[in-house]
Amino acid sequence: MLGRLNHVAIAVPDLAAARQQYETMLGAEVTEPQALPEHGVTVVFIKLPNTKIELLEPLGDDSPIGAFLAKNPSGGMHHVCYEVEDILAARDHLKAQGARVLGDGEPKTGAHDKPVLFLHPKDFNGTLIELEQV
Amino acid sequence: MLGRLNHVAIAVPDLAAARQQYETMLGAEVTEPQALPEHGVTVVFIKLPNTKIELLEPLGDDSPIGAFLAKNPSGGMHHVCYEVEDILAARDHLKAQGARVLGDGEPKTGAHDKPVLFLHPKDFNGTLIELEQV
Repeated sequence: MLGRLNHVAIAVPDLAAARQQYETMLGAEVTEPQALPEHGVTVVFIKLPNTKIELLEPLGDDSPIGAFLAKNPSGGMHHVCYEVEDILAARDHLKAQGARVLGDGEPKTGAHDKPVLFLHPKDFNGTLIELEQV
Repeated sequence: MLGRLNHVAIAVPDLAAARQQYETMLGAEVTEPQALPEHGVTVVFIKLPNTKIELLEPLGDDSPIGAFLAKNPSGGMHHVCYEVEDILAARDHLKAQGARVLGDGEPKTGAHDKPVLFLHPKDFNGTLIELEQV
């Protein structure tokens, strides 16, 4: 079921500073910041040869990463995103096995304009897992 | 400088349970557990098409992931590992830019028998970064 690792998301308190750090200190290729008000984040991508890292900064008052940054003010690894071929089949299989899907269980359109779902971190060793249909 | 994402490491309290979950619930290919007493962990790899996930369980009384699991009893994302071509050049560049290298600053032989270094998470948005020379 699990396909490629689409990205690792890292929540950061200061996107401009983090962006510069990955460029200058770590010598990585980083995209320009992209505001996604409908997702409550501003995002940049660090392009690696085999996958990407997403740096996320809260945007607006009701950001989905607001609580995480309140608990982890320096930032931290927020989630991993795996690609799946059929997100509804994946969801039904996972629910039948007892895993909890966040929200109402229906796929939403993610930051990459693809259907996504999030799985409860308590069911997966404290790791928030995003599934993205590709 | 940053090359491929070599792996994402997730610390887990019960490796057998986590292994079965990734196989059965997430339909992933998982290797057999490998005890690495010199590194204080038992490890399995989840093989993805473009990278791998390392699940780590403490081994012995002085495991490097012991404190992390005491703080996060359900487990959680522990570090990300990036490949670099020349780990000494990477280290010297990072130190010159003010980043802190953990330990005595000399590369150690990592779990994959390659030279590795860890960077201080406080310098990188709460994210523990491993560099591995490939």
